[in-house]
Amino acid sequence: MGNKNNMEIKQITNMETDFAQWFTDVCKKAELIDYSSIRGMYIYRPYGYAIWENIQKSLDERFKETGHENVYLPMLIPESLLEKEKEHVEGFAPECAWVTYGGSNKLEERYCIRPTSETLFCEHYKNVIQSYKDLPKLYNQWCSVLRWEKTARPFLRHREFLWQEGHTMHATADEAREETQRMLNIYADFCENVLAMPVVKGRKTDKEKFNGAEETYTVECMMHDRKALQAGTSHYFGDGFAKAFDIQFSGSDNKLHYPHQTSWGVSTRLIGGIIMTHGDNNGLILPPRIAPVQAIVIPVAQHKEGVIDKANELFERLRKAGIRTKIDVTDRSLGWKASEYEMKGVPLRVEIGPKDIENNQCCLCRRDNREKTFVPLENLETAVREMLDSIHNALFEKALANRETHTKICQTLEEVKEFMTSEGGFAKTMWCGDLECELKMKEEAGVTSRCMPLEQEHTGDKCVCCGKPADKMIYWGVAY
Amino acid sequence: MGNKNNMEIKQITNMETDFAQWFTDVCKKAELIDYSSIRGMYIYRPYGYAIWENIQKSLDERFKETGHENVYLPMLIPESLLEKEKEHVEGFAPECAWVTYGGSNKLEERYCIRPTSETLFCEHYKNVIQSYKDLPKLYNQWCSVLRWEKTARPFLRHREFLWQEGHTMHATADEAREETQRMLNIYADFCENVLAMPVVKGRKTDKEKFNGAEETYTVECMMHDRKALQAGTSHYFGDGFAKAFDIQFSGSDNKLHYPHQTSWGVSTRLIGGIIMTHGDNNGLILPPRIAPVQAIVIPVAQHKEGVIDKANELFERLRKAGIRTKIDVTDRSLGWKASEYEMKGVPLRVEIGPKDIENNQCCLCRRDNREKTFVPLENLETAVREMLDSIHNALFEKALANRETHTKICQTLEEVKEFMTSEGGFAKTMWCGDLECELKMKEEAGVTSRCMPLEQEHTGDKCVCCGKPADKMIYWGVAY
Repeated sequence: MGNKNNMEIKQITNMETDFAQWFTDVCKKAELIDYSSIRGMYIYRPYGYAIWENIQKSLDERFKETGHENVYLPMLIPESLLEKEKEHVEGFAPECAWVTYGGSNKLEERYCIRPTSETLFCEHYKNVIQSYKDLPKLYNQWCSVLRWEKTARPFLRHREFLWQEGHTMHATADEAREETQRMLNIYADFCENVLAMPVVKGRKTDKEKFNGAEETYTVECMMHDRKALQAGTSHYFGDGFAKAFDIQFSGSDNKLHYPHQTSWGVSTRLIGGIIMTHGDNNGLILPPRIAPVQAIVIPVAQHKEGVIDKANELFERLRKAGIRTKIDVTDRSLGWKASEYEMKGVPLRVEIGPKDIENNQCCLCRRDNREKTFVPLENLETAVREMLDSIHNALFEKALANRETHTKICQTLEEVKEFMTSEGGFAKTMWCGDLECELKMKEEAGVTSRCMPLEQEHTGDKCVCCGKPADKMIYWGVAY
Repeated sequence: MGNKNNMEIKQITNMETDFAQWFTDVCKKAELIDYSSIRGMYIYRPYGYAIWENIQKSLDERFKETGHENVYLPMLIPESLLEKEKEHVEGFAPECAWVTYGGSNKLEERYCIRPTSETLFCEHYKNVIQSYKDLPKLYNQWCSVLRWEKTARPFLRHREFLWQEGHTMHATADEAREETQRMLNIYADFCENVLAMPVVKGRKTDKEKFNGAEETYTVECMMHDRKALQAGTSHYFGDGFAKAFDIQFSGSDNKLHYPHQTSWGVSTRLIGGIIMTHGDNNGLILPPRIAPVQAIVIPVAQHKEGVIDKANELFERLRKAGIRTKIDVTDRSLGWKASEYEMKGVPLRVEIGPKDIENNQCCLCRRDNREKTFVPLENLETAVREMLDSIHNALFEKALANRETHTKICQTLEEVKEFMTSEGGFAKTMWCGDLECELKMKEEAGVTSRCMPLEQEHTGDKCVCCGKPADKMIYWGVAY
């Protein structure tokens, strides 16, 4: 019985056989997600949503510490409002879901469900910004957005997804640019120190930037299958939207000025990133600082006298120490439980049985490398805390090693093609800056530009594509 | 200059002159809300949203302590799904907003933006409930919902509003009924002990119950203008939806059973309740336990040496003591600042000037009754904490006195009519239980049934309307 259940819960595709199927299996079997009757609209189940709640909590603290305030704006945008900024509407209108009826009445104007909220924020900013004393406005919104895409995959491409969108207004371009970098750095710090996902911070090419932005910055991560994931973006808009929406403020010089704008966002896509960065053939592996359950206490031979009591004692001690802990005293077999918590990626199992009690110890089983360590009970809290940190570091190092091993400096398009077909990963090259070369890289090597890293290196003198003099170092890859 | 600003910020309508206008003025002047270009869809500004965040935090803790888990389901419902439960669709379809286009493609089926999510939860429950071991399912969702209503008022009636909706499934009717009461009690406790709003807990009549529910329970509050506000509801569904959606589980008896269902919710309407219960002609009055800013530190004669430093010291001490505190060192006048924080309903002003520093004291100014108390600086934290509790209690007692003064036991319809036209409030009567009498009360006295209180009293033997024998005590009133 225990064995049969073991087999059931373990049935996921090997990632080496079919990475996409492995990913979907993990999403389902770890109970992160369920399908709804509308294609591309998913249900965030309790365990998946709890990961998002931890992401929200951690980011929201960082936003508030840096002076941002949360607001909530309507989910519907009148078509005429969306059309006010030309590049923006061209980018988003094709994937909008349109509301045309309110009850049984046809609406005079169509409303789209927000795909992003720049236009709504601008409409509101026009009402609340009059003087330089009203600036900066540092707003953020947690909400869901809709983009009517044709293909869909859990966490990576939803028609409806959860995200946060920061929208800020500043008196000067310098201040707005500073904000764009500040938020990019917060995303980078969060990805690396909470999600254990190493990032490349960089700027997007004009082709890849956000519709309507002057500059887009990104944090790019490499997944286990060597593809790239854009984990978060931060945009500088200049005063383009402000002009389109006629937002002006009187400066300390008593003249009218247009404010300068930013926006920045991350979404539930980060959960897809966590899965594909850290997971293995036994399922999910959650970085400890975001895991809804950091430690699961499992009694061994729990029918023996005193075992469940002792296990409960450990559980209470860990909870009191501020470690997110659960205990499993159901009558399922030890093997079944081990498999289930492996599938769910719980960082640490704390096992205790009659022998351990005799020896005044328990066994800590790491999810990431499956190492087992016996620790004296008096050291429990410290040992668990240290091991959670050690797991975080190990996950980060492993992901970094994966990226470094699969990043290659290339001098020619041929070299990039060869690298992408033989091995795959990030190709690091020089680029002249021409759109033509960027398009040719896509056509011939199947790669898109990921970013021009903020930390530039000199890896050559010539553009990888056209061979002309080039002074920009850029990453190429295949992206999710 | 200071005076002019004073006047500006104070310009709100007196509540005695026009209560509705007073309410709207407070929403705008306290910067809780702004209008969008779609009628009935409002912008929650930072201060208004911060109140909602505190409501969320406090309720979410209570939900989690009682074993509930958060999930997120899609915002769109296919028309065919909404139609599965007859009473439910009849109630909601007339006020649905309908999505008919995805990008430039007409959809094969219309989708409505969720007005509530019973149908979506049932669709999901069908996937995840197979055995009695899967029960109970105790889910909650924080989200926004849309109801395309014709009239709109800030917080009280939005086309889009923020809420939480709990949806649970249980093996037995008893368990589900217990859950319905548990959540009603959580709402009552929250309203009274956090929002300082006394409630009447009771059951709705069949006419007033939720579309598709077997029983609806409510917490009803009396506003300052003696009208009723339904602050939260908790519904028992029996197995009606389970049958409509064909959700069955195998019991421990190895037979198939339909589970029993509940749902329960509160919304941003609670903020409307706070305003109308506690506010006065100087603006908002926030109950301390929900106020985004519990104490505002204001230096007096701040140009004098050492005043701002001392004020900052108090500010830091209060923050460290866990009191939500801000400090205002802008160059606006003292009168301007006092008016602004009165308008925003900050429970306590902490003022300190050169004389206070000499006397090693500061002045605590209560928002609710405008009393000023000088306290020795060494007692600051304790004094502030005690005063915040004392403000909470005073607000609660005042609201309770308002309700008790304006609740009248009536024996006849004539008496109710007389009471409602002369004074208004809650009419407490006996009722035979017939819909006909309920409709006549509306027609002739302009009142709707609020609830049959769980704590029944015997106030007579005959129905207030038809005079036949009656054993139900019921509240009538005019509702928001």
